[in-house]
Amino acid sequence: MTQEVLILPGDGIGPEITAEAVKVLVALKASDNLDINTTEDLVGGAAYDVHGVPLADETMAKAHAADAVLLGAVGGYKWESLDISVRPEKGLLRLRSEMQLFANLRPAFLYPQLADASTLKPEVVAGLDILIVRELTGGIYFGQPRGVRTLENGERQGYNTYVYSESEIKRIAHVAFQAAMKRNKKLTSVDKANVLEVTELWREVVDQIAPEYPEVEVNHMYVDNAAMQLVLNPKQFDVMVTGNMFGDILSDEASMLTGSIGMLASASLDANNKGMYEPSHGSAPDIAGQNLANPLATILSAAMMLRYSLGREDLAVKIETAVGKVLDQGLRTGDIFSDGMTRVSCSEMGDAVVAAL
Amino acid sequence: MTQEVLILPGDGIGPEITAEAVKVLVALKASDNLDINTTEDLVGGAAYDVHGVPLADETMAKAHAADAVLLGAVGGYKWESLDISVRPEKGLLRLRSEMQLFANLRPAFLYPQLADASTLKPEVVAGLDILIVRELTGGIYFGQPRGVRTLENGERQGYNTYVYSESEIKRIAHVAFQAAMKRNKKLTSVDKANVLEVTELWREVVDQIAPEYPEVEVNHMYVDNAAMQLVLNPKQFDVMVTGNMFGDILSDEASMLTGSIGMLASASLDANNKGMYEPSHGSAPDIAGQNLANPLATILSAAMMLRYSLGREDLAVKIETAVGKVLDQGLRTGDIFSDGMTRVSCSEMGDAVVAAL
Ligand SMILES: CC(C)[C@H](C(=O)O)[C@@H](O)C(=O)O
Ligand SMILES: CC(C)[C@H](C(=O)O)[C@@H](O)C(=O)O
Repeated sequence: MTQEVLILPGDGIGPEITAEAVKVLVALKASDNLDINTTEDLVGGAAYDVHGVPLADETMAKAHAADAVLLGAVGGYKWESLDISVRPEKGLLRLRSEMQLFANLRPAFLYPQLADASTLKPEVVAGLDILIVRELTGGIYFGQPRGVRTLENGERQGYNTYVYSESEIKRIAHVAFQAAMKRNKKLTSVDKANVLEVTELWREVVDQIAPEYPEVEVNHMYVDNAAMQLVLNPKQFDVMVTGNMFGDILSDEASMLTGSIGMLASASLDANNKGMYEPSHGSAPDIAGQNLANPLATILSAAMMLRYSLGREDLAVKIETAVGKVLDQGLRTGDIFSDGMTRVSCSEMGDAVVAAL
Repeated sequence: MTQEVLILPGDGIGPEITAEAVKVLVALKASDNLDINTTEDLVGGAAYDVHGVPLADETMAKAHAADAVLLGAVGGYKWESLDISVRPEKGLLRLRSEMQLFANLRPAFLYPQLADASTLKPEVVAGLDILIVRELTGGIYFGQPRGVRTLENGERQGYNTYVYSESEIKRIAHVAFQAAMKRNKKLTSVDKANVLEVTELWREVVDQIAPEYPEVEVNHMYVDNAAMQLVLNPKQFDVMVTGNMFGDILSDEASMLTGSIGMLASASLDANNKGMYEPSHGSAPDIAGQNLANPLATILSAAMMLRYSLGREDLAVKIETAVGKVLDQGLRTGDIFSDGMTRVSCSEMGDAVVAAL
């Protein structure tokens, strides 16, 4: 049966990078019996400009109906003065929430071919391979009450609520333990249990689950220390699990350690492995429309989609292998360029991956 | 008139490192007419073990009465299973809150003598000099309501409240702008205004204040991007201002970029420059009691105390110069040791600073 893939290019470099990923998928339809149908729609600022909202209800319905969603990126200067309720980011948050994509997997992996791209010393990052498991549908991103109120003295006060229930913590902890079982069996749970009650509960629940995975070595780390340890000794980590906001911060920090955020994919999954896939980087409005962006993170996100949601591990591996080949060929977009390499555009990089499949 | 300094050594390496700072202060009393009286008291786990609370009311009263407080560090494995309300950290939080120390200044400075200690490539961090201004008495650290409740379905839910009023944001923004005026006149305000209403207000208030400091170049950055930019290009920053929790995370990350967190001081000030001073690092229970810790961050915190709260800029400079000298002499505690240097203990380092005064 034909599987439905919804493509949401979004803003900034989003359209350019998703176009290259679609190119790869189209090639696989022809060469490898990939039986998918792709449809495109708007999200983020692009949707706001047309519909006045960053995600139209029809688009939401298409996402529900699809087997997987591939998203580029949302946001940009143009929409920064909009009210928070209609910002481009809200479109992304609505997708995550309504599709119940609670498990966000963000690998921070150092490509051996790009060892020199990191700002960290080679010996500190060589072989770096961290998987951050971020809770994505709860925490302070979605907590109620929230808003801005006027106090009795006439001044305004902004407020948000950081909230997690036991069941929310349990299900993301299980995802993280299972991921650790498939990797090096080390799990670091990150919280601020010395200050925040919500994360005290987080720590307690992770400890309750731990005996179900006796082979996994678990440790707990405060978020400030985790931010520090990622710089001091990142190779101590295998899988990290944390809430929505700490995960936002630490996954960006971790991915930048590799020096190649333009290479890093992500998956956001629901309880049945239906998912949304997007590059770890943002919409980079400064280089949008110039055919300069690195499409590999999006192409690798398409690979994750084939693996987790579309049951085609074979094609996921095929794409990942092809990406390795183009790196071996010395092809580099500007973000990962170094002396002696061949500088290519976004579309040339996509073409090269197709050729290497 | 004799000024009163309350010494709160705290836990872990706290007693060792504060002892060395006191050594320096005592030397200055003799040599430079430093007219202070020091008293010692308990905080953190050390206080809990004696009083059943991490800060006794009598100690709180002494802190109020003192002209300045010098604190070592709090916390450790021993007290990690205690309820959040009596944890060692709560003693520190009570001091910050009741003394109204809303302005936390955390320099992240690369000592030229320790250029090689960083895990980042030398060209990325050479000359690094960032001042993080962290709001310290508000935000999610102190927001109400907070706790753990039982939902109708019987499961527990933890919750905390991230809250800032306009006046809280204004006063910390002024501190940051004024600090920027004395430095390179660049201010980066860090928020998550694309998701959290409380930080949307933060951004708005910072923009309101900005015209009062026309010489300062202000920019806004999302916290996830800031965590990334600190790794990618830390030298783009001069002063950073942010809320309590983001400041906790980013200041630890930034200080670790220098590779010498054992060297970094901090000041926490109220509206009248009364303050509490502490090293940026923690209580390091793993090396406590072994005379291995680096006392320089605490000694440099004493220097900040002389500068901001005790009106003795001359002696602050004298201490800072002495610290430069011992580094030039090649003296190193274990945390900053490298080949060819002379390894010294905590107390030897303190002695060396006194000798170099
Ligand atoms: C765009 C923004 C809402 C989003 C987030 O904060 O989750 C982004 O930073 C991310 O990490 O995917
Ligand atoms: C000990 C802890 C409560 C404290 C904090 O989170 O503020 C510490 O991490 C710090 O940064 O001073």
